[in-house]
Amino acid sequence: MHPMAIIECIPNVSEGRRGDVIEAIAAAIRAVPGVRLLDHSADASHNRSVFTMAGDAAAIKAAVLAMYERAVAAIDLRTHTGEHPRLGAVDVVPFVPIEGVTMEACVALARDVAQEVAARFSLPVYLYEEASANPARKNLEDIRRGEFEGLAAKMASDGWAPDFGPAAPHPSAGASVIGARMALIAYNINLNTDRLDVAKKIAAAIRHSSGGFRYVKAAGFTLGDRGIVQVSMNLTNYERTPIFRVFEAVKREAERYGVSILESEIVGLVPSAALNSAAEYYLQIAGFKPDQILENKLRNA
Amino acid sequence: MHPMAIIECIPNVSEGRRGDVIEAIAAAIRAVPGVRLLDHSADASHNRSVFTMAGDAAAIKAAVLAMYERAVAAIDLRTHTGEHPRLGAVDVVPFVPIEGVTMEACVALARDVAQEVAARFSLPVYLYEEASANPARKNLEDIRRGEFEGLAAKMASDGWAPDFGPAAPHPSAGASVIGARMALIAYNINLNTDRLDVAKKIAAAIRHSSGGFRYVKAAGFTLGDRGIVQVSMNLTNYERTPIFRVFEAVKREAERYGVSILESEIVGLVPSAALNSAAEYYLQIAGFKPDQILENKLRNA
Repeated sequence: MHPMAIIECIPNVSEGRRGDVIEAIAAAIRAVPGVRLLDHSADASHNRSVFTMAGDAAAIKAAVLAMYERAVAAIDLRTHTGEHPRLGAVDVVPFVPIEGVTMEACVALARDVAQEVAARFSLPVYLYEEASANPARKNLEDIRRGEFEGLAAKMASDGWAPDFGPAAPHPSAGASVIGARMALIAYNINLNTDRLDVAKKIAAAIRHSSGGFRYVKAAGFTLGDRGIVQVSMNLTNYERTPIFRVFEAVKREAERYGVSILESEIVGLVPSAALNSAAEYYLQIAGFKPDQILENKLRNA
Repeated sequence: MHPMAIIECIPNVSEGRRGDVIEAIAAAIRAVPGVRLLDHSADASHNRSVFTMAGDAAAIKAAVLAMYERAVAAIDLRTHTGEHPRLGAVDVVPFVPIEGVTMEACVALARDVAQEVAARFSLPVYLYEEASANPARKNLEDIRRGEFEGLAAKMASDGWAPDFGPAAPHPSAGASVIGARMALIAYNINLNTDRLDVAKKIAAAIRHSSGGFRYVKAAGFTLGDRGIVQVSMNLTNYERTPIFRVFEAVKREAERYGVSILESEIVGLVPSAALNSAAEYYLQIAGFKPDQILENKLRNA
């Protein structure tokens, strides 16, 4: 049915300021046949870049190794500063199943790449999310807590030996977190108010960590330049916690404070299935099959 | 940006009972390189079949001519009976722009095919919808009124000379209507009631012909086996009269009679853009770009 398996990979690299380093990494990814670099963006205050690429397992693996080659050589965590928490030069590498490929295949790829990275660069690697074999080391935030500066002590403590590689940090490149997960949707809802407490209360109501939906991370922020507030979210499994259910919950919580939704925004990419499920829900479409979408039918014909 | 222009063509043929004739037409379409026959379905009581194919202009033209070859040889309107109105053996042939192709290109293709069909089969052809050069002959129902049985008299009357071909009907194959139009969405809304008058009043409120939306055709029906009623619609331009606006209007009209929407259904295929616009609307997504859909990004990368 599918001409080719498509896996997405979104490495987060601890360099957001030196354009030449970022461009060299992008060029190394682009040079791998069968890989498409869909996007890359750098944030100077975070001092961090995100690369989005797609391809089949073999091509993606080659591109990730090429990226490590450049990043480990160019980035030194001992002099790195930035607002975003980080553990290593190549901080996090998630593999995401997109089309014609299972989560299990992405887990296998994550472990294969982790093993090779550890061996080739003498770098400790932790597995996370679906690739993790350790319940206490599934969540990225738990693994990254203490950051690069606390890494040597953390690695020496009980339960923090890495999944692959040496038992102590790489001197300049720290450690890496590699894993597999569902496609993540970065989704923000802007409220018709400047009351930050309302955004924070709604975020607390809907996020998993404080009792909300299983696959929602959320925080409340002020958008100072616009005089409004935002509930900023990551939806980490749009099949089990769909976007429309989160939207409706935020809307209902906001009403309780006399506040309405001004607009929402999707940051970056979204799988079409996540949007289609919202259309299906609101239009109350019964018995809909993905094959009824003209483009799917054409692609699979 | 697009590897290939994709045009959809959905011929309606006046044969829904003889499986061998229908299969021979399907085989003739399938045999044309570069054309994909996405679907075909036959209705015995209508005595009519609908074929859905896609390809670029040259391939689609070859497939349509091959289909005419079979249909004109096998179908005789003088002995044809069925519930659906019809003018000819190949009754209607619409060309629809899907991807990487303009409406203007589909209009040009419709005229080119019409001219060739008229010459090759000595068949009168009327142009309709976007391909029509005559405001009084834009609407399919107006052209088809009187059907095959009234065709000779109609063609002899003022203003009904065909766009191409002879001035009198083909003895067995009648005439054809060929044109270009937007993708059509067959969309039904089922109501939580058995009151047919409510479905009929709602249909009248929303359809163009009686004062409703410009690109909606609608009628009310009883679904006898389920004890409910249905507002059955064709949405003829989902960009200008979007599916969500129609859904909301039906919902509001139903409320006025104390009735709610049980469910809706999309019959056959729907362009993904029509579903995405519903998600955008209900989720109040600001500044969304089609390029943010992962699959689009991948396809265009």
